[in-house]
Amino acid sequence: MYKLVLIRHGESTWNQANQFTGWTDVGLTERGENEAKDAGKRLKNAGFNFRYAYTSFLKRAIKTLNYVLEEMDLSWIPVEKTWRLNEKHYGQLQGMNKTGMVEKYGEEQVLKWRRGYDARPPEIPLDDPRHPAHDPRYQQITEAGAQPGTESLLDTVNRIVPYWETNIKQTLKTYKEVLIAAHGNSLRALIKHLKNISDEAIVDLNIPTGIAYVFEFDNNLNLLKDEFLADEETLKKLMEEVKNQTKK
Amino acid sequence: MYKLVLIRHGESTWNQANQFTGWTDVGLTERGENEAKDAGKRLKNAGFNFRYAYTSFLKRAIKTLNYVLEEMDLSWIPVEKTWRLNEKHYGQLQGMNKTGMVEKYGEEQVLKWRRGYDARPPEIPLDDPRHPAHDPRYQQITEAGAQPGTESLLDTVNRIVPYWETNIKQTLKTYKEVLIAAHGNSLRALIKHLKNISDEAIVDLNIPTGIAYVFEFDNNLNLLKDEFLADEETLKKLMEEVKNQTKK
Repeated sequence: MYKLVLIRHGESTWNQANQFTGWTDVGLTERGENEAKDAGKRLKNAGFNFRYAYTSFLKRAIKTLNYVLEEMDLSWIPVEKTWRLNEKHYGQLQGMNKTGMVEKYGEEQVLKWRRGYDARPPEIPLDDPRHPAHDPRYQQITEAGAQPGTESLLDTVNRIVPYWETNIKQTLKTYKEVLIAAHGNSLRALIKHLKNISDEAIVDLNIPTGIAYVFEFDNNLNLLKDEFLADEETLKKLMEEVKNQTKK
Repeated sequence: MYKLVLIRHGESTWNQANQFTGWTDVGLTERGENEAKDAGKRLKNAGFNFRYAYTSFLKRAIKTLNYVLEEMDLSWIPVEKTWRLNEKHYGQLQGMNKTGMVEKYGEEQVLKWRRGYDARPPEIPLDDPRHPAHDPRYQQITEAGAQPGTESLLDTVNRIVPYWETNIKQTLKTYKEVLIAAHGNSLRALIKHLKNISDEAIVDLNIPTGIAYVFEFDNNLNLLKDEFLADEETLKKLMEEVKNQTKK
């Protein structure tokens, strides 16, 4: 049996300020750090023994992973960082307040940008200093898609699924228990593929911060079951929170 | 030009208690965490731009590296962890107080165990639960030497030099600026090789905690110069501290 555990980073400073973050590299709040530590404690108590971990190029996910591994006394396991697990790029929305955008563009348009499958927010132009082409961490990557000015969830799926197929799957077979610390939308993209969720249904999937999402596979990597490592009430409350971020 | 920077982890809980640590996996003290953060700030101010980092399997080195990279906003660079950069294994001395050992065995014998080139402290037997053969992080390693019951500095040199030759050198050529966060004796072993220090002279080399040691190489990886990133007075004081750990 193989176990893959997904965890969305704890609260970031821009989550707290209710701003679109995307590829902006912001840190965790104190609450976010504690969420990560709590997740580590719960995973340790539940008997997980990860032997390999993945995270994105963004420090809110990297720090979350570091805290989880420290709590589990597993800081020594190999960690692979990849731009492919980055949050969806939010284009011009990055840095904008979520409720402010609802006032400006209306709730329907913002929900489409946040959760619509193939909707891309307005693009950041290449000559904007915020464009990933000016960031050394992406400049060094020669793969297509590593320097986007905006992304849809479809774009995010298209950079994550090949990575799952050619890299993570093999690691899971070798190491048996694997942890991924990443972002709301990059995890939604991966889960869409793992659970074969339709383009329409994916809009309703909300992932709470700091709660481990456990996937179990058989020897042929067929999905057996998936469940959050939290009681039902906590879970419901947290999912409502994510869903209501654009509510005034 | 290629730059390799070595940093010894900040003060650990057992440094503070003046105990031999070796492969025992103890954490940093608050002072140790601050040493690491300060080192990160100094490296950032000095304009370093690491593109790859190495550390050991021990959390005091891993956490030091994490703090340094966070301060430098470089948490995203690849980090390779290896048992080959672990501290020298101190055998039965691990967990023992340094001055207590001097009282029991005499200063000369303890200095030999601490700094003698080929002296191994008494071995931890294989059936002792503290032996690395019982630790999952070393069990998975099939390479010779990964499960020692004791080590001399010579043994430590013999596991680090091949790693330098076959792995780190190539990384340095590819990434140009490389950081290694490790331990007093694993760094002494590497420096002995890099500076071609004799078996006799290596006994006098003391490495302070949390101070970056910068090595510059030409395009053929010939060593051009090496210097600590600290003023002379600070350096002298710190080196005396390390040297005097067995003084009553």
